[in-house]
Amino acid sequence: METPVVALAGGVGGAKLALGLSKILAPDELTVVVNTGDDEEFYGLHVSPDLDTVMYTLAGLSNEETGWGLSGDTFTAVERLKTYGVDAWFNLGDQDLATHLRRTEMLRHGKTLSQATESMRAALGVRHPILPMSDDRVRTVVSTDEGELPFQVYFVKRRCEPVVRSLSFDGATEAAPSPGFRAAIEAARALVICPSNPFVSVAPILAVTGVRDFVRELSGLRVAVSPIVGGKALRGPAAKMMEELGLDATCVGVAREYAGFCDIFVIDEVDAHHREEIEALGMRAEVADTVMETQADKVRLARHILGLKE
Amino acid sequence: METPVVALAGGVGGAKLALGLSKILAPDELTVVVNTGDDEEFYGLHVSPDLDTVMYTLAGLSNEETGWGLSGDTFTAVERLKTYGVDAWFNLGDQDLATHLRRTEMLRHGKTLSQATESMRAALGVRHPILPMSDDRVRTVVSTDEGELPFQVYFVKRRCEPVVRSLSFDGATEAAPSPGFRAAIEAARALVICPSNPFVSVAPILAVTGVRDFVRELSGLRVAVSPIVGGKALRGPAAKMMEELGLDATCVGVAREYAGFCDIFVIDEVDAHHREEIEALGMRAEVADTVMETQADKVRLARHILGLKE
Repeated sequence: METPVVALAGGVGGAKLALGLSKILAPDELTVVVNTGDDEEFYGLHVSPDLDTVMYTLAGLSNEETGWGLSGDTFTAVERLKTYGVDAWFNLGDQDLATHLRRTEMLRHGKTLSQATESMRAALGVRHPILPMSDDRVRTVVSTDEGELPFQVYFVKRRCEPVVRSLSFDGATEAAPSPGFRAAIEAARALVICPSNPFVSVAPILAVTGVRDFVRELSGLRVAVSPIVGGKALRGPAAKMMEELGLDATCVGVAREYAGFCDIFVIDEVDAHHREEIEALGMRAEVADTVMETQADKVRLARHILGLKE
Repeated sequence: METPVVALAGGVGGAKLALGLSKILAPDELTVVVNTGDDEEFYGLHVSPDLDTVMYTLAGLSNEETGWGLSGDTFTAVERLKTYGVDAWFNLGDQDLATHLRRTEMLRHGKTLSQATESMRAALGVRHPILPMSDDRVRTVVSTDEGELPFQVYFVKRRCEPVVRSLSFDGATEAAPSPGFRAAIEAARALVICPSNPFVSVAPILAVTGVRDFVRELSGLRVAVSPIVGGKALRGPAAKMMEELGLDATCVGVAREYAGFCDIFVIDEVDAHHREEIEALGMRAEVADTVMETQADKVRLARHILGLKE
């Protein structure tokens, strides 16, 4: 794979591979572009869960047990909010609040989400660029048997229990890619779609105006990694969602989402028997150990992907 | 003294006497009206230091060591803000942040400062009304040898070091008393000016349109308590400020500020020798033990004041 690389990422799974890539590639060889369809306002603050997961992970500060927030954080502010009668179902740590306070204040003072993210990732010592997919407002809406739910209501408040019928990305067709995203993808010699949920992490990025065309026209290698291993999501509701959407809850079901604009689809060793089904979709199937638990796992998978050739 | 009573208060000294009064008077017998000239926006949040000091004190939650914030609070969010490069010279506790988040969100949703305060004090179990002097914006500006400084810059950032030349209250002449303040003072049968700084705690309240006239026309007893004892401020910069303003840094200097619309001026036992000077200003001097350290002290002074007769 040639560089520079653009990596598309959602939350935890995406952040893990992004960390692996960042350990091998120089800052000018990797740009991580992150889903902001999950963004929401809580307690008057602009919260960007996926941006923060990627930023905290690359800074070595993420809470690996919960998959969100800062390691060792406390939760006294949100507890106090509850005493004020606030239905504080979205938990935010005390230190994590500083990130949302800073972001919100920068946005109110006319800075873009890109600028706010850039300022904070640099302050945390993260050397690789982390970019929101767009500086414009895009919001993932989950249409369920309980009606249309904003993503965080579906994901956090309702714990992914409602049955998903379809997904939409409010604002995506009016949103422009962030300036850095556009520049990075124009310069890119390769694209990596991280093992994030294809429907609520990657799809919002691809839904931003022009992004699908950029990806189609990208001259280098385009590689996607399956977040579904052995018919199960490594984390989160991807498999449940696929069943509810009437799709195969397998790596093949994920591959279908990327058919037509990915060159290589990376599946786990346990899914090696799906190789032919994937190649029938017009992509090369690459078998790898995709489960990332330790930092060594993340670097190993990143190295495998970076070693791929056309 | 007849009831209902309106008490005017600033920060710590005012909160102490307000607490004493609240231990004796029923909720319909006492309204505490608080200075908001100290209010300021920090980190995108509307902070009302004096309102919070009074609210936390009456809720039994105040940090008595520092004189501000909540007892046992932590400061991790502001520390994290500093890592983002924010010049976070105004310290706010993590739990305390919840108060400012809640207030700011209510104000952004069109509630008044009175409504935000009412909602939070009730949630904290405080039974007596606590009201901002005004729902309109008033900001104390300190004119010093270093130029004009917003109050919190003078008070916290510059630790009261600049030499004070004069004080002004931006917006006071356009500000209306909060609706509850107006109603309470119209119904009041007595007024207590708590031992708060006369220049930066009480003067902003009196500067709000119409308040001085209301106080002048109040039919019951009007009693002020000196915050200067033995030529020293019990807390804060009042004595230093008086010297810099060319005033007597004694209880007599304070009494001059209230001459003309107070009936009784309460001085400490150590200042009993100033009695005649105060009475020459047209007020009766009342000698009491005004130093409030324990809760018993606060109740004792409150009881003394409530026992005063014309």
